[in-house]
Amino acid sequence: MSDEVLVGILGKGTVGAAFKELLEQRAGMVEEVAGARPKVSGVLSRKRGDFDELLAASDVIVELIGGTDPAREYVIRALREGRHVVTANKQLVAQHGDELVAAAKEGGAQLRFEAAVAGAIPVIRVVQESLGAIPIEKVFGIVNGTTNYILTEMSRAGLSYEQALEQAQDFGYAEADPTDDVGGADAAAKMAILARLAFGAPVALDDVSYEGIEQISPDDLAYAKELGLSLKLLGVAERVGDRQVSVRVFPCFLYPGHPLAPIEGPFNAVMVEAPTITEITMSGPGAGGPETASAVLGDVVSVIGGGSPLFEENSKLTIAKDTESAFYLHLEVEDRPGVLAKITEILGEAEVSVRSVVQRGMGDDARLVMVMHEVSERRFQSALKKIAKLRFLRSPPRSIRVIEEEFV
Amino acid sequence: MSDEVLVGILGKGTVGAAFKELLEQRAGMVEEVAGARPKVSGVLSRKRGDFDELLAASDVIVELIGGTDPAREYVIRALREGRHVVTANKQLVAQHGDELVAAAKEGGAQLRFEAAVAGAIPVIRVVQESLGAIPIEKVFGIVNGTTNYILTEMSRAGLSYEQALEQAQDFGYAEADPTDDVGGADAAAKMAILARLAFGAPVALDDVSYEGIEQISPDDLAYAKELGLSLKLLGVAERVGDRQVSVRVFPCFLYPGHPLAPIEGPFNAVMVEAPTITEITMSGPGAGGPETASAVLGDVVSVIGGGSPLFEENSKLTIAKDTESAFYLHLEVEDRPGVLAKITEILGEAEVSVRSVVQRGMGDDARLVMVMHEVSERRFQSALKKIAKLRFLRSPPRSIRVIEEEFV
Repeated sequence: MSDEVLVGILGKGTVGAAFKELLEQRAGMVEEVAGARPKVSGVLSRKRGDFDELLAASDVIVELIGGTDPAREYVIRALREGRHVVTANKQLVAQHGDELVAAAKEGGAQLRFEAAVAGAIPVIRVVQESLGAIPIEKVFGIVNGTTNYILTEMSRAGLSYEQALEQAQDFGYAEADPTDDVGGADAAAKMAILARLAFGAPVALDDVSYEGIEQISPDDLAYAKELGLSLKLLGVAERVGDRQVSVRVFPCFLYPGHPLAPIEGPFNAVMVEAPTITEITMSGPGAGGPETASAVLGDVVSVIGGGSPLFEENSKLTIAKDTESAFYLHLEVEDRPGVLAKITEILGEAEVSVRSVVQRGMGDDARLVMVMHEVSERRFQSALKKIAKLRFLRSPPRSIRVIEEEFV
Repeated sequence: MSDEVLVGILGKGTVGAAFKELLEQRAGMVEEVAGARPKVSGVLSRKRGDFDELLAASDVIVELIGGTDPAREYVIRALREGRHVVTANKQLVAQHGDELVAAAKEGGAQLRFEAAVAGAIPVIRVVQESLGAIPIEKVFGIVNGTTNYILTEMSRAGLSYEQALEQAQDFGYAEADPTDDVGGADAAAKMAILARLAFGAPVALDDVSYEGIEQISPDDLAYAKELGLSLKLLGVAERVGDRQVSVRVFPCFLYPGHPLAPIEGPFNAVMVEAPTITEITMSGPGAGGPETASAVLGDVVSVIGGGSPLFEENSKLTIAKDTESAFYLHLEVEDRPGVLAKITEILGEAEVSVRSVVQRGMGDDARLVMVMHEVSERRFQSALKKIAKLRFLRSPPRSIRVIEEEFV
C-alpha cells in the first residue's frame, strides 16, 4: 500500500456522513498509527455515482449503504478485485458471510465488520483475535439498544410497551418502522455473526430462533421487580454438548448481581465465557452514528496497519434442536382449592421443578407467578400446552425465560 | 513464516507452565485460525538453558520470566534480531517501553503485551487497535485484583485490612510479599502502559503518582456505606487540557450506578472514554495463571496472523502537576460549638465546596464525615494542612478521593 490509502465510501446516510467527517478529522492520527494517510476517493449513494469508477479509484471500500442489495454485489466485487472492505452491515454479513469470506480469500483482501455488532464495543475483534484460539463456551448479551431502552423505561416509569416505543422513537432510539428491532430480527442477525466467529460453525440466519418484546406487559415487569428480577432482550450463542450450538434471542429475566442486570437505556453489553478466562464483560453505547463511525474507523486503521482478521472453520458443529432454560410463568386462574395442586402436578410430570411461587387473590380470581429451575424447553412447552387447556384458566398462560446463574 | 512457528518460552513459573500447556493443547486451533502451527522450541528458566541457543531456534519469544533483569536484555536482543516478542511483564514494559518499541522497529519485529494489564481483558488491544485513531480522553479502572479482593472483603465482612490481606493470601489472591499490590506500585506500572498507548505520551513510571490501600480502615468503609459509596483502588489516566496528561493511582469512593461500583472480588475492570464512543467498560477476572496464559496465547495468534500492533507518538503532551478531585474527609474533633464553623471557613477560603456532611457525637468527641465537590488537589491539600493544625482535632484528618461523576 502506498503512503496514501484511497477510501471509497458507499452510502451517504447518517453513518456514511459521520464516518466521512471522522475519517477526514482523524486522517493525521491514522497516518501516525498505521503508517499511511487515508483519503476519501469518492462517495456513492444509492442514486448517485458509478461503482466501477469508485472501485477503480479506491484501495479500501467502506460499505455503509445498508440492506443486501446492491451491497452484496458491490462488496463481493470489491473483495474479489483485491480491495479491502470494511462494512457495518449486519444483514449482509449474517446472510452472506460465507460468500464474503470466500471472496476475500479469492482476492487476497481483508474483510472487517466490527461495526455490525454492538456499536463501539469491540466484541468482534475480541472474539476473533484475542480469543481466536480459546474454546469459547458461550457469547451472550444485550445487542439491541432500542429494545433495552424500551424495557428500561417500562420498568423505570411503568410505561406500557406502546408508550415506551413512542418515547424511544421521539428520542431517536427507535426507527419509524421498529419491526426488526422490537421483533428480535436485528439481534438475531448479530448473534448469527457472533456465533460464527465464536464457534466457527456454519450458522445461517434461519438457524437463529428469535422472539421480540412486543408481548411484554407492564405486569410482567411489576412482578419481576417483586421477585428482584430485571428483564432484558438477550441474544445467546452457546455450545450444547460436543457437537452442537444453539443460537437464540429472547426476552429474559436476570437475577440481581448478574453483570448484565445493570445495563440500562440504549446501552449494549456482551459477555464471553470460556474455561481459561471465566468470563469477560464488555459494555458501551449501542450503534448510534458516531459510535458506528468510530468502529468503522478502527477497522480502517487495522486494514491499513495490515494483518488479516482470522476466520476459523469448524463444520462439525450443528444447530441444537432443544436447549435448557429456566422459565417464569404467569397464570390467571379461578381462586379455588386444587388449582395450584393441578398445575404443579402437570409441571411435576414434565419434570419441571419450581423455584419460587407468588400467589395473589383478585376477587374470584388469583394470579400465580412461578419461577422454574432449568429444564428442557421442549418438556416445558409441552407442560405449558397442557396447562393452557385447564378449564380454570382465565387467560392464556404467559412465560418468559430466566437466567438462573448466580454471579460472584 | 513457515507453516510451523517455533515458540521459545522464557520462564518456568506458574504462568510459564500454564502457557506451555495451553499452547500445546490449542496448537491445532491456532493453526486453523492463524495459518501456522506453533511448536515449543524450548523453555528457559532462570537457572537452566542457554538463551542464545533458544533464540537461534525460535521465531517467537514469549517472555514470562518476570522482573527486568535479565528479561530486558533478552527481549531487546530478540526484537533486534527480528524475533517477535510476547510478554506479560508489566514492569519491563512500563520501565523500558521506549527501548523495546525502538528495538522492535530496528528488527522489524512485533512486540505484544496484552497480558501485562488486566489479565484476560483485552484492554491493550482495544486501546491500541479499535480506538487507535480515536482521541481518548480518559482510561481508568480497577487494574489490581488483590486490592479489589481485600477492599471487597473489608466492606462485605467488616474485616480489618490485616485480616482481609491474610485471607487474600490464604486464597492465593495475594503474594507472600504483597507490597507492590497493596502499595499501588503494580497498578501504577499498568497505568503507565495504558497512558502511553492511549495518549502516545512519554509516561515514565516515575510520572505516575500512586497511593495504596494500607491506610484504609474499616471505619472508612462503614461511613462509605452510610453515604451509599463503595471504595475501590482506581488507576486513572486522563488528558488535562490540551497539553497535559495526569496518571494516578489512589483509593477512591464511587457513587452507586457507577459502572465500576459493582466490580467485586479479584476482578478487574477498565473504562475508556472518548467523545465519539462516550464510554466502553470491560471487566473480567484479574491476572491468574490461566487468564494470563490465555492473553499471551491471543498475542501469539496475532503475531502469527501478522499485522504489527500500532504505536502512536505524541510527545507534545506533558505530565500535569495538579488535577481536580472530589474528596471525602474524616475528622475526629472535640464536640463543642464553633468547630464545624472553623472547618468550613478554612475549606471556604480554599474554595473547597462541601457536598454532604454527616456529624455524630461520641461522648465529648464528634466524628465529622464530609464529602467535597471537585477541587484542585493542591488547594485541598493546603486546606487540609491548616485543618490538621487545629487544636480541637483529636486525630490526624483522613481524606480519600471520590469520583463524583453520575452515570446513565
